[in-house]
Amino acid sequence: MVNSIIYFIPIAGVLALLYTFFKTSWVSKQEIGTERMERISKSIASGAMAFLKAEYKVLSIFVLIVALLLAFSADPVTSSWMISISFIIGALCSGLAGFIGMKVATKANVRTTHAARTSLGKGLEVAFAGGSVMGLGVVGLGVLGLSILFIVFSQLFGLEGAGAVNKVLAVVTGFSFGASSIALFARVGGGIYTKAADVGADLVGKVEAGIPEDHPLNPATIADNVGDNVGDVAGMGADLFESYVGSIISTMVLGAAFMTIPGWSDNFNGLSAVLLPLVLAGTGILTSILGTFFVRVKEGGNPQKALNIGEFVSAFVMLVASFVIIRWMLPAEWTFNGQALTSLGVFWATIFGLAAGLLIGLVTEHYTGTGTRPVWSIVKQSVTGSATNIIAGVGVGMISTAIPIVIIATAIIGAYHFAGLYGIAIAAVGMLANTGIQLAVDAYGPISDNAGGIAEMSELPSEVRERTDKLDAVGNTTAAIGKGFAIGSAALTALALFAAFITAYETVNPGVSVSINITNPFVMASLFVGAMLPFLFSALSMNAVGRAAMSMIEEVRRQFKDIPELSKALAAMNRNEGKKLKDWSTEDRLLFEAADGKAEYEKCVAISTTASIREMVVPGLLAVIVPVLFGFLGGPEMLGGLLAGVTSAGVLMALFQSNAGGAWDNAKKMIEEGVTIDGVKYGKGSDPHKAGVVGDTVGDPFKDTSGPSLNILIKLMSVVALVIATLI
Amino acid sequence: MVNSIIYFIPIAGVLALLYTFFKTSWVSKQEIGTERMERISKSIASGAMAFLKAEYKVLSIFVLIVALLLAFSADPVTSSWMISISFIIGALCSGLAGFIGMKVATKANVRTTHAARTSLGKGLEVAFAGGSVMGLGVVGLGVLGLSILFIVFSQLFGLEGAGAVNKVLAVVTGFSFGASSIALFARVGGGIYTKAADVGADLVGKVEAGIPEDHPLNPATIADNVGDNVGDVAGMGADLFESYVGSIISTMVLGAAFMTIPGWSDNFNGLSAVLLPLVLAGTGILTSILGTFFVRVKEGGNPQKALNIGEFVSAFVMLVASFVIIRWMLPAEWTFNGQALTSLGVFWATIFGLAAGLLIGLVTEHYTGTGTRPVWSIVKQSVTGSATNIIAGVGVGMISTAIPIVIIATAIIGAYHFAGLYGIAIAAVGMLANTGIQLAVDAYGPISDNAGGIAEMSELPSEVRERTDKLDAVGNTTAAIGKGFAIGSAALTALALFAAFITAYETVNPGVSVSINITNPFVMASLFVGAMLPFLFSALSMNAVGRAAMSMIEEVRRQFKDIPELSKALAAMNRNEGKKLKDWSTEDRLLFEAADGKAEYEKCVAISTTASIREMVVPGLLAVIVPVLFGFLGGPEMLGGLLAGVTSAGVLMALFQSNAGGAWDNAKKMIEEGVTIDGVKYGKGSDPHKAGVVGDTVGDPFKDTSGPSLNILIKLMSVVALVIATLI
Repeated sequence: MVNSIIYFIPIAGVLALLYTFFKTSWVSKQEIGTERMERISKSIASGAMAFLKAEYKVLSIFVLIVALLLAFSADPVTSSWMISISFIIGALCSGLAGFIGMKVATKANVRTTHAARTSLGKGLEVAFAGGSVMGLGVVGLGVLGLSILFIVFSQLFGLEGAGAVNKVLAVVTGFSFGASSIALFARVGGGIYTKAADVGADLVGKVEAGIPEDHPLNPATIADNVGDNVGDVAGMGADLFESYVGSIISTMVLGAAFMTIPGWSDNFNGLSAVLLPLVLAGTGILTSILGTFFVRVKEGGNPQKALNIGEFVSAFVMLVASFVIIRWMLPAEWTFNGQALTSLGVFWATIFGLAAGLLIGLVTEHYTGTGTRPVWSIVKQSVTGSATNIIAGVGVGMISTAIPIVIIATAIIGAYHFAGLYGIAIAAVGMLANTGIQLAVDAYGPISDNAGGIAEMSELPSEVRERTDKLDAVGNTTAAIGKGFAIGSAALTALALFAAFITAYETVNPGVSVSINITNPFVMASLFVGAMLPFLFSALSMNAVGRAAMSMIEEVRRQFKDIPELSKALAAMNRNEGKKLKDWSTEDRLLFEAADGKAEYEKCVAISTTASIREMVVPGLLAVIVPVLFGFLGGPEMLGGLLAGVTSAGVLMALFQSNAGGAWDNAKKMIEEGVTIDGVKYGKGSDPHKAGVVGDTVGDPFKDTSGPSLNILIKLMSVVALVIATLI
Repeated sequence: MVNSIIYFIPIAGVLALLYTFFKTSWVSKQEIGTERMERISKSIASGAMAFLKAEYKVLSIFVLIVALLLAFSADPVTSSWMISISFIIGALCSGLAGFIGMKVATKANVRTTHAARTSLGKGLEVAFAGGSVMGLGVVGLGVLGLSILFIVFSQLFGLEGAGAVNKVLAVVTGFSFGASSIALFARVGGGIYTKAADVGADLVGKVEAGIPEDHPLNPATIADNVGDNVGDVAGMGADLFESYVGSIISTMVLGAAFMTIPGWSDNFNGLSAVLLPLVLAGTGILTSILGTFFVRVKEGGNPQKALNIGEFVSAFVMLVASFVIIRWMLPAEWTFNGQALTSLGVFWATIFGLAAGLLIGLVTEHYTGTGTRPVWSIVKQSVTGSATNIIAGVGVGMISTAIPIVIIATAIIGAYHFAGLYGIAIAAVGMLANTGIQLAVDAYGPISDNAGGIAEMSELPSEVRERTDKLDAVGNTTAAIGKGFAIGSAALTALALFAAFITAYETVNPGVSVSINITNPFVMASLFVGAMLPFLFSALSMNAVGRAAMSMIEEVRRQFKDIPELSKALAAMNRNEGKKLKDWSTEDRLLFEAADGKAEYEKCVAISTTASIREMVVPGLLAVIVPVLFGFLGGPEMLGGLLAGVTSAGVLMALFQSNAGGAWDNAKKMIEEGVTIDGVKYGKGSDPHKAGVVGDTVGDPFKDTSGPSLNILIKLMSVVALVIATLI
């Protein structure tokens, strides 16, 4: 009879889902505002759903094929069809989380705009409520899915002894693989989508047709706005869902290794270390919910502070709770593989993870935030043109990798020192325990960003725009920090999965001790190939953006030609260039109004969707097939070398690209707001601003496509290794 | 009594030096041409010497300090002062090779211009003669220095048994360290120098003062031209000198390990595997000299073909000779560490190295050559502006890493399969055996590039320029291939040094078998830090270029202000903008002529020199101190992890940056020559050309500063590890 604690965990998951249900209906009940606001927001929402529909159609085929492959692969440990079930459920949960998050985000954006018409505090409330649905949805579905699968399969296999538990865990690993597969599509596909739409809308709309950004006549405008949700809400959510689930499952696998210690079973039937990550995650749900109640701001107050307080309360309560839980569940001290471990040490390991996540976020903010010295250096170099702006940004991106890597290395060594390999995994759990509120803050960003856009398109009074701008400015900072946090957690999760892979392999091959020795040339060669993959992956996704943008451009051109209302309205616009609408001739104004809503947004959305999904097939296959090849042809050593290479180079390239992109973005914004360099003032339209725009455009695929997709690459490859660990 | 073969080796070195002596005096005897040509070339030559003088002043202090540190460090194996002697001699040899190469290159450039007034063949002859002095100088001094040190120290320690030989080799390793130290200054300092001068000359000269490129009134012009020699001749020479020496010495160390095999001493007193790399290198000198005789072209012929034939003859003869030598020196078969090895296998390993070098060169040409599909893709993306040009270039650079890495991985595994760790080192030797002619071809590039510049500045008739352009075009291709070759050889050399480091450590710690196991978190953390260093190093050198360029700009501005002749001439130029000199007023013309030669070129040269040397202190210290710290604090495991990280990420970043830079460069050139895209013709001054210039400017520090300096980083860190292997 396993402890009742195992039933506490799904309850926490259910609580999170109840919270999202409650918040969703609260958001839905808020007022939308003017008819124009409603129309714009509806287009975005239906575009986002169109993307999801198309994505899920392709995804279901992919999931089905992989599930069949998994079911038919020869698995000596488990009945393979069960891992297929886990895989499908993992994919479903990740997909559902994305669906819920996007659905609410596309409702919350316009309602945030409307709320901002009343007050800043009200705007923050709505935007954050929308974000918190994404946050709690992810952790709720993650914990619920994992714990229920664990309970169900433990009924089948039992939980008596390490062998049975390992069987259960091997099957549950499929859940993580499913989550990773969806993350691949959401993050990589979403990244390609958002930038293809962005570039496509800009190039034909602004440059060729001469209509301003976000203009309803541009058929790609809605795709562009949808892209923000697809990339920053659903993409980030799937990314963290993958990290969250991956860190928990790898800690469980490593915890099961303790079961061979004599006397270990005195404690929670030997399951203490296996259940600990789930219990921590469940507790994290409660502390996250608690934290959301502290996010409030008065008119004139600072929204950043409000968000910080919420996060701080969650983190502090989680800290105390972790200490109590770890001391309660784990024995005071034990010895494993010759290393003396203590429950206090495990607690310290979680602190290392938590601190690493926080510090990386702060460093990211330093290198990418508005007004910081590194960003300011890019601004200054923009005076001498685009080339020096680019060189400066590349320099900032590269140098920004140094401190985060030292932090990660310290976290690895510290966590290991205090709690062995289990410590590295539990550090990842510690970092991710508060994913609920962390992701709520992350998703708040694009919602308030969209709210600002809607305010601008709807021509609301300036004080509304000032409020949404204030909310949006905070969103930019949180987005940068969130990206750093996502990379840091991906690194630790990948390492935890890596350790779990080794442990799982050693478990099914008793007596074998895997040594992935770099002095072995096969390992070294694999390391090289692994380190190359992030470069290849980045290049592929970057080229994909280019090609997908071309498809978009062609579709927009076609619409301008084939839809008579559009071409007539464009002609009218060109006839009246520079004039305000009220000064146009009546005839032209009628032509212009007749075109409203005639642009076939959904076709652009479909184009971007199809293109992005088509374009991510090659990188996606690469991520799955390469580790399988190395594992089956080269054994665990070459696979291990490959993973070490891809993880180290992947983390570096992710940091480099994300931070360079973020820094370019804010450098451009600083110039737009007006800067004084060597006594000369520069602003929008100045030469340095043009240089800044070039840097920002280069940075876009860096920070929104190739950079973040590397998070997925490193985790997915490790998950694949863990899944096939028992087969090679 | 060691075999007389050991005395053959220095003779080969002497032969190479005789060749360079002969060729130098031949080049010197060629005619210079017009007085104007002479004046320009003299300024470049004296500027280059000024750089060397300043560099060597700083270097001698650095060398002295490190030599003292080496002498006083506690070394259980050797009398430390001897390693200091080796270190100083290595530094001297590398410095001397750079001196000779630069001296002749700055003579050959103007003489090539003059020779091209007669015929293409004559121009090729002079340019290639200049390049061959650099090539044979490097291999001659390398082989001579290594073999004489080996002979001298073997007189001291004897050569009986593995212990004595290891002592000798531990001391000789200092030579390699000395070579690496100079390479660091030459490559990193030279890279910073050349780009600082380039950017500085462009920004004040062209942009502020409005005088054309390469105009004698611009005080930075000479520094700019000197930079080409400093970077592409001396820098590349020092880089390959380091690889050449490093690959030989590491093969010797690995060969000494065979001496513990019972019965091994029957063969060349047990020294066969130790002497083999030296014998191959000596033979390579002869085949390189032979090859140079085949480099000839008739008027209307193809200079590329002439160079190819020379390289092909050398390679083919070397292949046959290698087979004979290896079969003769090594036993037919033996067993080491449980692996069955054969002399035929060792031969195959050299083939793997040779083939890898060639293939990487070809792939580099594919990704960076004029008219290739990848470069063409950058050209096409230039139509939509700088940003898409940059994104395309980054994409090409990243994707260009894939095939070379697979080639390197294959070479590692193939060489190991056929001949163990010794095979990996001998593969590097095989790749570098023909460095003599390879480097001759490399150095031919900047010489003919300079020749074209001098032709342009001296306003020679158009058929001369056409001929130098033809020579120059070939130079661009060879430069790209040479860069790929340099990276490939750096990778293999670093791996060979890495293997030698492990072997040397195990030799002084009998019974210890070093396992650098990635599943050990300390190794993993070190791997992360190691992989971060190339990013940090690149960022530092890129920022250094920016700062050094600023110093240059200030100096040029000062001269324009403080030298009355210059400011008057500038004013005269501005008064007559757009007019030809003959249409100016007599007064203005006199002012203009009075300024000729008044610019203080040597001050700009000194500024660039000081700045570049000051700027490379931090990256330089980083490269030396970090491995020492990891070695002494973390032991061989953490040092090994660090080296694996820095080597894998370093090779990738070097490939990425060099190839992206090369591709941008040629994309710009293609647009300048005129391209037709979607039916529209674009040429010099068009918008795509402007985008191409931005890409080229971004690519400059990529391909000439940060990219190549990573070659040094990975080798230097491995050499440091090898030097301290007996101390940790």
